[in-house]
Amino acid sequence: MKAVGLVAEYNPFHNGHRYHLTQAKRLTGDNVVVVVMSGDFSQRGEPMILDKWDRAKLALQNGVDLVVELPIFYAVQPAHIFAAGALHLLAALQVNDVVYGAEHPDWDFTTLVQAERQFSSTEFHRYNATYATQFNMELQQLTGHQLTEPNDILAFSYEKARQQQHLDLQLHPIQRVGSDYHDSQLDGHLASATAIRNAVEQGQTIDGAVPASTATALGQVKHVPTWDDLYPLLRNHLIQAPVDLLGQYYEVAEGLEYRMKDAASRNLTFADFNRAVKSKRYTYARLLRAYLYTLLEMTVDQVQAKMAHPYLHILGFNERGQRYLHQIKRAVPLTLITNVNQNVRDQILQLDYRAGKLYQMFNGVEQDLKHGPIRIAVKE
Amino acid sequence: MKAVGLVAEYNPFHNGHRYHLTQAKRLTGDNVVVVVMSGDFSQRGEPMILDKWDRAKLALQNGVDLVVELPIFYAVQPAHIFAAGALHLLAALQVNDVVYGAEHPDWDFTTLVQAERQFSSTEFHRYNATYATQFNMELQQLTGHQLTEPNDILAFSYEKARQQQHLDLQLHPIQRVGSDYHDSQLDGHLASATAIRNAVEQGQTIDGAVPASTATALGQVKHVPTWDDLYPLLRNHLIQAPVDLLGQYYEVAEGLEYRMKDAASRNLTFADFNRAVKSKRYTYARLLRAYLYTLLEMTVDQVQAKMAHPYLHILGFNERGQRYLHQIKRAVPLTLITNVNQNVRDQILQLDYRAGKLYQMFNGVEQDLKHGPIRIAVKE
Repeated sequence: MKAVGLVAEYNPFHNGHRYHLTQAKRLTGDNVVVVVMSGDFSQRGEPMILDKWDRAKLALQNGVDLVVELPIFYAVQPAHIFAAGALHLLAALQVNDVVYGAEHPDWDFTTLVQAERQFSSTEFHRYNATYATQFNMELQQLTGHQLTEPNDILAFSYEKARQQQHLDLQLHPIQRVGSDYHDSQLDGHLASATAIRNAVEQGQTIDGAVPASTATALGQVKHVPTWDDLYPLLRNHLIQAPVDLLGQYYEVAEGLEYRMKDAASRNLTFADFNRAVKSKRYTYARLLRAYLYTLLEMTVDQVQAKMAHPYLHILGFNERGQRYLHQIKRAVPLTLITNVNQNVRDQILQLDYRAGKLYQMFNGVEQDLKHGPIRIAVKE
Repeated sequence: MKAVGLVAEYNPFHNGHRYHLTQAKRLTGDNVVVVVMSGDFSQRGEPMILDKWDRAKLALQNGVDLVVELPIFYAVQPAHIFAAGALHLLAALQVNDVVYGAEHPDWDFTTLVQAERQFSSTEFHRYNATYATQFNMELQQLTGHQLTEPNDILAFSYEKARQQQHLDLQLHPIQRVGSDYHDSQLDGHLASATAIRNAVEQGQTIDGAVPASTATALGQVKHVPTWDDLYPLLRNHLIQAPVDLLGQYYEVAEGLEYRMKDAASRNLTFADFNRAVKSKRYTYARLLRAYLYTLLEMTVDQVQAKMAHPYLHILGFNERGQRYLHQIKRAVPLTLITNVNQNVRDQILQLDYRAGKLYQMFNGVEQDLKHGPIRIAVKE
């Protein structure tokens, strides 16, 4: 058995994801589909609309064979770390091909990645522009292209990670279909995840945009978790903790700890707080990640220590996925986690466990301890 | 002008407090009434039903001349520190007499305090009984009395503090009237503060038990703040923070940090958490204080540093109180704070400021920064 790998958030699983899945199977001659999926928080640092178990189940119900969790230290990161982490796990899972959507799958990403090596500098120290802006000015000059769309940026990052990690796997950027990632309106058969979440929050029907299983799962969602819910917790910690402790958290540096502390003491709503912290230096996504790591009290040291020892936390499989796992397990160079005991919780999985404990305030469900993989029968 | 001092929480100001005030004036020939009042959190470590400004205003509207805040490091403490701190401030305010209610005002508290010096030990190291139980076993043996009622315990503590601090002021325990502190039912003209808060929470009328001004203020209360509201914040910090940091907080020691962390990871409601932490060693009041200091992230070092430099934060006065303040101010040995600027906020008042920032989540009102004393015209 050979496997094709996908990287996903599935927040939530919608028709566009299903199309992507079908294409991946078609491209590879119906290989086993292995998905590396983010846990309870998105790349932007926001709580997912459904927890990782519900989302893994939907993926399995819709044709995925094996779902592995992308640990928080890879999942809640800028594109280059997100992509590098995901590819590292897929390679460990003995995947041969990786398929992902891009806005411009026809671009020669290999050449773009090579162009980056000729940048005059990759350390961007200007404080009045985001990293992305400064990066694109350099890229434009050398190649005539700019990476402005999220899936193009990921496609670039996958190619870069493949080269850097010398990975023996085939990358297949394919045309992304349907609504723009940024679209917030629900519009037709292929809507964005953002539009679907907004529709759920507003109580609108989303049946046309998602498989029936997703519609059923979302029907149970009484409240879409947001940073408005998390802000009272963040605000208090920012006010009470000494600024030198705040400065130790991952993604919090360069004085951001002072900005956040000051904004927390002045603002009672998340929207006001977020506006007060924003500067030209940081994107909102970058800030949301800093807020999340602060709320999770994860220090640079803790995150880096765990990043040095990644693992494969199995969230679920069908019979085909299970057989594949059995076939590869001796070749897998990383720890495979299926059931989480207290030792796993306190050691290797500690950061994901802590993130899951925060998420538990939304749905009351224990995320890791004593939780085994979801097993479903192969879809006929 | 001479002054009589009272110590109060006024949570909220009710008819029993009014009776106490009248008695204090009568006993001292209508002296200026100076009240040292707790801030936004009670001695038991619970959020007050109204903030300190609303409660100071009600006190002034009902005959108090000057209200000074009892800082959190005195206010959220066992009786002996609470009483010692309050008397220290009243003595600094040049008060001649202190009047307080006791269940047994006829007892000879001077003798009871002297008896304590003959205890075989005042360090109680048994882990299966509270401090109070062990204390009373010793006291019973020597004097035949036990201090089991809250105001008797405070009366004992005031007398003890007077002796220890060699204070030149007269103590006047008077008969406490009306409902038992522990009564939770609203019953007649003199109801307990607990009963009144319960009635407000349940939307019952409290007009018979409180002055009209209190009834009006409580009419604005949409939700009575409780630990149920604070628990999500406490829970997350207990889960995310390293146990050695938790062990540095005031009142958290002897392994309580492990108990709390474990209970937080297992329980989603405050009631379940609190039951899980409880042991014979600690009273619930003791635990609630530990939770509050944990949520406020106040370390032993921080609390002790501030306790070494107490101050007088003036919450309000009428013209009589203002004249009295003017008369004594040169003799006052402590810093008098009337308006809170950024320097006062960050330095001397830092702990009260942080407590006020937590309370602000309930009513949205900035508690300290740029807040000046409440001034009201003398009641005709």
